[in-house]
Amino acid sequence: MFRHTKLLILVLAAITTGPLAGQSVPANTTAASNCLPGKSYPRIYPDQRIIFQLHAPDAKEVLVDIVGKKFPMQKDTSGTWTVTTEPIVEGFHYYALNVDGVRVSDPSTYTYFGASAALSGIDVPAPDDMDFAAKDVAHGQVQAHYYYSGIRQATRRCFVYTPPGYDENPGKRYPVLYLQHGWGEDETGWSTQGKMNFILDNLLAEGKAEPMIVVMDNGDIAGLPFNVVNWDSAQSVTSTGKDKVEFQDLIIREIIPMIDESFRTIPDRDHRAMAGLSWGGLQTFEIVFNHMDQFAYLGAFSGALRLRDNVDITELYGGLLKKPEVVNRDMKLMWMGTGSEEGNWSQGFRDKLVELGVQNIQFYVSPGTAHEWLTWRRCLHEFAQKLFK
Amino acid sequence: MFRHTKLLILVLAAITTGPLAGQSVPANTTAASNCLPGKSYPRIYPDQRIIFQLHAPDAKEVLVDIVGKKFPMQKDTSGTWTVTTEPIVEGFHYYALNVDGVRVSDPSTYTYFGASAALSGIDVPAPDDMDFAAKDVAHGQVQAHYYYSGIRQATRRCFVYTPPGYDENPGKRYPVLYLQHGWGEDETGWSTQGKMNFILDNLLAEGKAEPMIVVMDNGDIAGLPFNVVNWDSAQSVTSTGKDKVEFQDLIIREIIPMIDESFRTIPDRDHRAMAGLSWGGLQTFEIVFNHMDQFAYLGAFSGALRLRDNVDITELYGGLLKKPEVVNRDMKLMWMGTGSEEGNWSQGFRDKLVELGVQNIQFYVSPGTAHEWLTWRRCLHEFAQKLFK
Repeated sequence: MFRHTKLLILVLAAITTGPLAGQSVPANTTAASNCLPGKSYPRIYPDQRIIFQLHAPDAKEVLVDIVGKKFPMQKDTSGTWTVTTEPIVEGFHYYALNVDGVRVSDPSTYTYFGASAALSGIDVPAPDDMDFAAKDVAHGQVQAHYYYSGIRQATRRCFVYTPPGYDENPGKRYPVLYLQHGWGEDETGWSTQGKMNFILDNLLAEGKAEPMIVVMDNGDIAGLPFNVVNWDSAQSVTSTGKDKVEFQDLIIREIIPMIDESFRTIPDRDHRAMAGLSWGGLQTFEIVFNHMDQFAYLGAFSGALRLRDNVDITELYGGLLKKPEVVNRDMKLMWMGTGSEEGNWSQGFRDKLVELGVQNIQFYVSPGTAHEWLTWRRCLHEFAQKLFK
Repeated sequence: MFRHTKLLILVLAAITTGPLAGQSVPANTTAASNCLPGKSYPRIYPDQRIIFQLHAPDAKEVLVDIVGKKFPMQKDTSGTWTVTTEPIVEGFHYYALNVDGVRVSDPSTYTYFGASAALSGIDVPAPDDMDFAAKDVAHGQVQAHYYYSGIRQATRRCFVYTPPGYDENPGKRYPVLYLQHGWGEDETGWSTQGKMNFILDNLLAEGKAEPMIVVMDNGDIAGLPFNVVNWDSAQSVTSTGKDKVEFQDLIIREIIPMIDESFRTIPDRDHRAMAGLSWGGLQTFEIVFNHMDQFAYLGAFSGALRLRDNVDITELYGGLLKKPEVVNRDMKLMWMGTGSEEGNWSQGFRDKLVELGVQNIQFYVSPGTAHEWLTWRRCLHEFAQKLFK
């Protein structure tokens, strides 16, 4: 039996001693904020071109794949492959390297859970980055909250943001936002690529948002081929695929009661919101419209995919949209957002709702962004200012 | 300027539709617990052989590298590379794939921060896995705690474990264990690969440990070539390399006061412990022995590297070991642990301390494990039962 008796640290030391150590870098470039400690690539020019680099003397073909857009790399005499891309739009982009036909993550950057995989990510600086940055303000805390689910018969994890002052004010109770990730992502998304804690911290420091608890659970939509998920009902199945319990049952029957027991919430609909991005927005419409007694605030960030089915939405949600006056009376906030570059499905769904008689939908368009996390960071930044007021 | 106007989700859907979907798997094997959702490889036999798989029709050479031990993979006619290893010792192992000479992480498994990189990891089942498993018991919570460091002039993050009941008993105060990761790792290590929260949860449920707060900060030893770190003084530098402030200054001057202000600690030496693994163990000796007024409990998990220098340790730590009676009088617990397969440096250091007159050192050897996380999970499981009693 193999036992690695050599000290691991010696091997680890060898790993980090790459041929790139100590080399000079192109002038007027900055290492991406996503670089691992000690790494100096990828680098970004002020005009948003990115230089990627990989040392791979024996590879035949290496390219960078940024959400489907491919940039072939060139090898120099030392065996280091490099490419400078065209300018890449600001925001967070998943990407991968492709080495001789194999999609792999970049050894130079942190990985993020997206597309049901550990993908590389790069943040191209945006003018409003300071809205999402860690500043010297009072910080709320994000905790991994473990609980046992009788429905799933497993220990599950959600992340819970508690605002600054939560521990210092043990008599105070807070409203709750349930905030969902997108397809192929998980409960880590909003507090990692989403920077939701810094967005809330900064808004609270400026007095622009109400203190709130934010719950981010796993929507159980990772690991499934996209077409397995039931498009019509936003039904999701567990990651094992062994049973099929909709996520709305989980959140209504287990997660909300568990959160109300574990945290100092104000446990009523007037102090409970739900929002989600992309598939999480679809789940949000499904869950809020089917459980109007539970939520008074709805946010959908690039989340109106329903229209693609050309289904009659008055037949959905228990027929709720046949009585738009109920929505108009009971919903304190109907908020939708989208990126300017991702198509107009959200606009189409908004128009459909208006046509059916739903009033007072607030609609936001993130300028210059597509179906990606900068759109959703901005959506949260806007949406959170309207909540619980 | 390139903007990805196609919907990201369509690209993501394509990513997960690999050629492996739906295929049968070898009998009598189990998918590793580290598999990403929807992935069924690597798989483990009861005798601890592992099958790795990668679809890479255009690659010339693919191998699996488990901490330096290499297993070449064979390609079948469909372009899928496979290897079945020899039996691999139980425990958590970092590993990588090597595709045509490029070290990459395995697209089938989660990545972990180690060796200053996002490395693949695999857990080979161990007989005592249930000590570290998520069971249906009361769970403490792990929170990401952000704070501003005046010394580093940056927002830093530590992880803090609070035991079950912390929120429900706002008048209760707790002892604190400062628990450090190893070289090339960061503040995520103990609550991810280390499973420290489940270890504590399970011990508390069985009444075998005292409720405690556990603080896991970043030891600032990632991203540096191993030989840059000052071996003699355990000095670490920041990840930017711009200044050189020892981690002991950070923990004594900033982190402990910040924790005592932010959490309901018992803020005295009799209720404060420090422990660390590997390089974190070296830091623990350095920090505790130089600050005996701050700590009454010490744990070193594979952490006695000092002896390799053949330095006179009575000259270190302000000459503390010239007065072993001070250590014997003031330290409530001197605990050391190591793996049976990683060499005897810890034993050597223990013998040196005993020779100098230090008494009552408790020493634990994890059977059959090397310099890796199963050793350290077991060390924490043993050590935590001795703390604050």
